[in-house]
Amino acid sequence: MEQRVSLITLGVADLAAARRFYEALGWRCKEVEETVFVQTGGSAVVLWGREKLAADAGIEDTGSDGFGGVALAQNVRSREEVDAAVAAAEAAGATITKPAAETFYGGYAAYFADLDGHLWEIAHNPGFTLADDSALVLPDSLK
Amino acid sequence: MEQRVSLITLGVADLAAARRFYEALGWRCKEVEETVFVQTGGSAVVLWGREKLAADAGIEDTGSDGFGGVALAQNVRSREEVDAAVAAAEAAGATITKPAAETFYGGYAAYFADLDGHLWEIAHNPGFTLADDSALVLPDSLK
Repeated sequence: MEQRVSLITLGVADLAAARRFYEALGWRCKEVEETVFVQTGGSAVVLWGREKLAADAGIEDTGSDGFGGVALAQNVRSREEVDAAVAAAEAAGATITKPAAETFYGGYAAYFADLDGHLWEIAHNPGFTLADDSALVLPDSLK
Repeated sequence: MEQRVSLITLGVADLAAARRFYEALGWRCKEVEETVFVQTGGSAVVLWGREKLAADAGIEDTGSDGFGGVALAQNVRSREEVDAAVAAAEAAGATITKPAAETFYGGYAAYFADLDGHLWEIAHNPGFTLADDSALVLPDSLK
């Protein structure tokens, strides 16, 4: 199996509300057949009805709205960008689960939950390189 | 907020077991401070203790092992590659939640759950382009 992720699908309760949330963050969303796609570098984020996603995956949705054990992160270039992204998310209706603060690795980060509880970390990590096209490149020590 | 995903962190119960699982799929894992990193194109997949992730995000982990509302997907170039990836995952200890089958969009896909229940879809979608570097490029109709 190749070492790649093509799609990150977030199950949502209200597709229109979820789309408005991500559009309020400045994301360009395109919708086809009640599925919203957002190009994110060499992958795409997909918003899709939670029940449809569970059915498609062949699992039973127990309806838990607790922690699903997954967090997405966006690494940015400065502490100011962390603060700006978190402010934009809060204005769009996100719940800030961890206000921006120093991290144990010498960075600065915050977490928010989107309308369906999906967690996003916004982080400035001086040890992680962002390429010119904003791709995350793990440091040589981690490759 | 930019339209990017830098890290996809999967909370896991047993880091060593999770690492062995992904290494059995052929992934190159590097570990530092009980955190496993895998470069996946312009982003990285991270394996981290589920309790640590919840604490870092400032949320309470209710311990649900149900559907977390997220699925990752890897798009491949042929039906044969779908079958091969699913076979490799099953051999590594994954649970096949949906055996490979025709999809509603004219493709061929399967889902498996990793050791912690994180869902992966392996899909051949003739409508989605994979660039030479395997980046997923949404069709123009979706941009």
